[in-house]
Amino acid sequence: MVVRVELLTVGDELLRGDVANGNAAWLGRRLTEVGAEVTRSVVVPDELDAITEALGEALHRAGAVIVTGGLGPTSDDLTRDALARAAGVTLRREPELERRLRERASSRNVPLRDEALRMADVPGGAALLPNPAGTAPGLRLALPGGVVYALPGVPSEMRAITEESVLPELRGTTRAARVLRTATVWESVIAARLTPVEAMPGVRLAYYPSPGEVRVRIEADGEGRLAAAEAAARGLLGSALYGVGDATLDRVVHGLLAERGATVAVAESLTGGLIGAELTAMPGSSSTFAGGVIAYATPLKHSLLGVPEDLLTAHGAVHPEVAAAMARGVRERLGASYGLAVTGVAGPEPQDGQPVGTVHVAVAGSGGETTVRSLRLPAPGDGDHARGPIRRMTVVHALDLLRRVLLTLEPSVRWTG
Amino acid sequence: MVVRVELLTVGDELLRGDVANGNAAWLGRRLTEVGAEVTRSVVVPDELDAITEALGEALHRAGAVIVTGGLGPTSDDLTRDALARAAGVTLRREPELERRLRERASSRNVPLRDEALRMADVPGGAALLPNPAGTAPGLRLALPGGVVYALPGVPSEMRAITEESVLPELRGTTRAARVLRTATVWESVIAARLTPVEAMPGVRLAYYPSPGEVRVRIEADGEGRLAAAEAAARGLLGSALYGVGDATLDRVVHGLLAERGATVAVAESLTGGLIGAELTAMPGSSSTFAGGVIAYATPLKHSLLGVPEDLLTAHGAVHPEVAAAMARGVRERLGASYGLAVTGVAGPEPQDGQPVGTVHVAVAGSGGETTVRSLRLPAPGDGDHARGPIRRMTVVHALDLLRRVLLTLEPSVRWTG
Repeated sequence: MVVRVELLTVGDELLRGDVANGNAAWLGRRLTEVGAEVTRSVVVPDELDAITEALGEALHRAGAVIVTGGLGPTSDDLTRDALARAAGVTLRREPELERRLRERASSRNVPLRDEALRMADVPGGAALLPNPAGTAPGLRLALPGGVVYALPGVPSEMRAITEESVLPELRGTTRAARVLRTATVWESVIAARLTPVEAMPGVRLAYYPSPGEVRVRIEADGEGRLAAAEAAARGLLGSALYGVGDATLDRVVHGLLAERGATVAVAESLTGGLIGAELTAMPGSSSTFAGGVIAYATPLKHSLLGVPEDLLTAHGAVHPEVAAAMARGVRERLGASYGLAVTGVAGPEPQDGQPVGTVHVAVAGSGGETTVRSLRLPAPGDGDHARGPIRRMTVVHALDLLRRVLLTLEPSVRWTG
Repeated sequence: MVVRVELLTVGDELLRGDVANGNAAWLGRRLTEVGAEVTRSVVVPDELDAITEALGEALHRAGAVIVTGGLGPTSDDLTRDALARAAGVTLRREPELERRLRERASSRNVPLRDEALRMADVPGGAALLPNPAGTAPGLRLALPGGVVYALPGVPSEMRAITEESVLPELRGTTRAARVLRTATVWESVIAARLTPVEAMPGVRLAYYPSPGEVRVRIEADGEGRLAAAEAAARGLLGSALYGVGDATLDRVVHGLLAERGATVAVAESLTGGLIGAELTAMPGSSSTFAGGVIAYATPLKHSLLGVPEDLLTAHGAVHPEVAAAMARGVRERLGASYGLAVTGVAGPEPQDGQPVGTVHVAVAGSGGETTVRSLRLPAPGDGDHARGPIRRMTVVHALDLLRRVLLTLEPSVRWTG
């Protein structure tokens, strides 16, 4: 059975966007993983009426409600009071909790304000959930509509209590799911290709696009159906599929290089360092990433990378041959196995007669061979807004071209394209 | 008058925690900044009933509702239908939108599925809000309970439409506020310094920390009190204050360089290209950013930047003198007015005997003078989690050091320190 769960997060700072709602995201992930279904997530301010009302609404719809936040020691921590009101009970002071609070204060040598003793107040009928990561316990209250769990907002404590006391009660039939990651193909094309998978019984697809990439989540009734759907999707996606689950493109490229004992050096123009930043984000990147040259000003493409001056004079900096020469130059000068280069127009203005979105990506290999891909990336809206997405898409296309070159050179590695 | 606004975010992926609800956080921040009040934030699944019901509830409580997500081309994009249901109207196809969709598909040479034409459907009575960052417009629908804005879930598009069409209508009039931006000083130190401002009548402060930076929001009852509070805060913050409002550190540095007709070249190690990426994010950056060298592998610091080999042999790559030599080397080799360099240990493992978080930042100027700052950045949690924040803090410290050098060299520019 799948349990329907609603999340209720309490805190003004979340509504103002001062902090992101990381607790709700974490709870959503963990609950989904154990087979519960999160059907709504609500953030309310630190106000007694708002919390009480939202609690009642949530219990009306779902079988379980997880409240986080509002259990601290200050006057704007009102979750206990709201729970008591919703349950029609009063708060009682737990002597054991009071003793622990006094003990902690004296061990830290800080005064214990009367107000802080609120943390020892518990709605009548509530059970205490042990907190392996802190002092304040969670609360569990069974009401006619369903069960309410109230957890501290401190992420480490919220997570520890959830793992120990909440998830075991909400565990449902696990829904089998997998995320397939694709690069350099439009969402509409991916969706069109996967139409047959979408039609498979007991299978649901969801698409998460980001610039240059589309993640496809396949959810199926049971592992058998998931395996069949995944196999079908892999066949239809072909070489657009680069990884599964948490295997981001930079990690995949790093892994392919590491398998070969190879390194890469980058020559960047419009991306200004983003490709290097991406390839050095993960621990251990120094084994496959040598370094790079950011040849932003056109003359540097000649002086730092050896791009022929007459090429730059004849065609400007945005040309497939320039990308190829940059890739060869950076590979040679940095002594790497592969050179990866990009040149193009991020906007907002055209450059060297080329429109915004013109991008050339090149990979130079050890045998002197160079692969170039020329792109016309979309520049949605006006130029200022296009700049970020074009740079990001360029990073994806560059990493993906290197991935394709690495896989082609090594036909023993399975390549679905 | 303060407008009460509710946020309604549509998407299964948010409830499952596949992605964080960054749109709600951003909207909360911007709405608060313009003086509106976000009174609730709700996430619902891609289900017609759930969206319609939540929309009705939100309109019952608040004067304005901003819906994000569910406006895409696939069958699970149901926000348009929910809006029509809530308003009791039907959807009509907008010929102009249909034309744009067909045009875009043919320019990209991708097939246009019938389903995708849903994006041209608009609830009767809805106004279209121009999208400066993409094709699909936002929608504005005035209903008896209040106004509903429906925006695409793509962050760049959601933000652009919000700035252009939504915020001007929701701007509050009573609360005056300003955001002061500081770099390289701890939140606790900033808060302690600003205690006298916090005590000023009718003034409220909020702190928004991010790695290496703290933004301070000053809110006051009226422009007069705000001006007084801001003046006091400026005096207390001194040189930690680098900008106001949207003046990010990269923009401030770009502006200072541009005023002087100067350029900068970067030499990066642990940041792997992040500083270059930051300095090229804004349009027009080519006038002040020459390029850079990513000397990730230690030998490249010698071969590409001229750092003396004996220095590297004696001390390893993480040393103040290495940072200084990198800054001088990149300035000279790239022909820039200033050289900006970083070397350090991002983790998770120590390097050359230096612990994680050891970072040296250097600026070389045209007169041969070099300024170095050595840092021990905190590595919270285990090493894997520290890597990202350490790299980000290094970027902030590097840009801030260049800012300070630029301002010191030009005492005519006002410097509050």
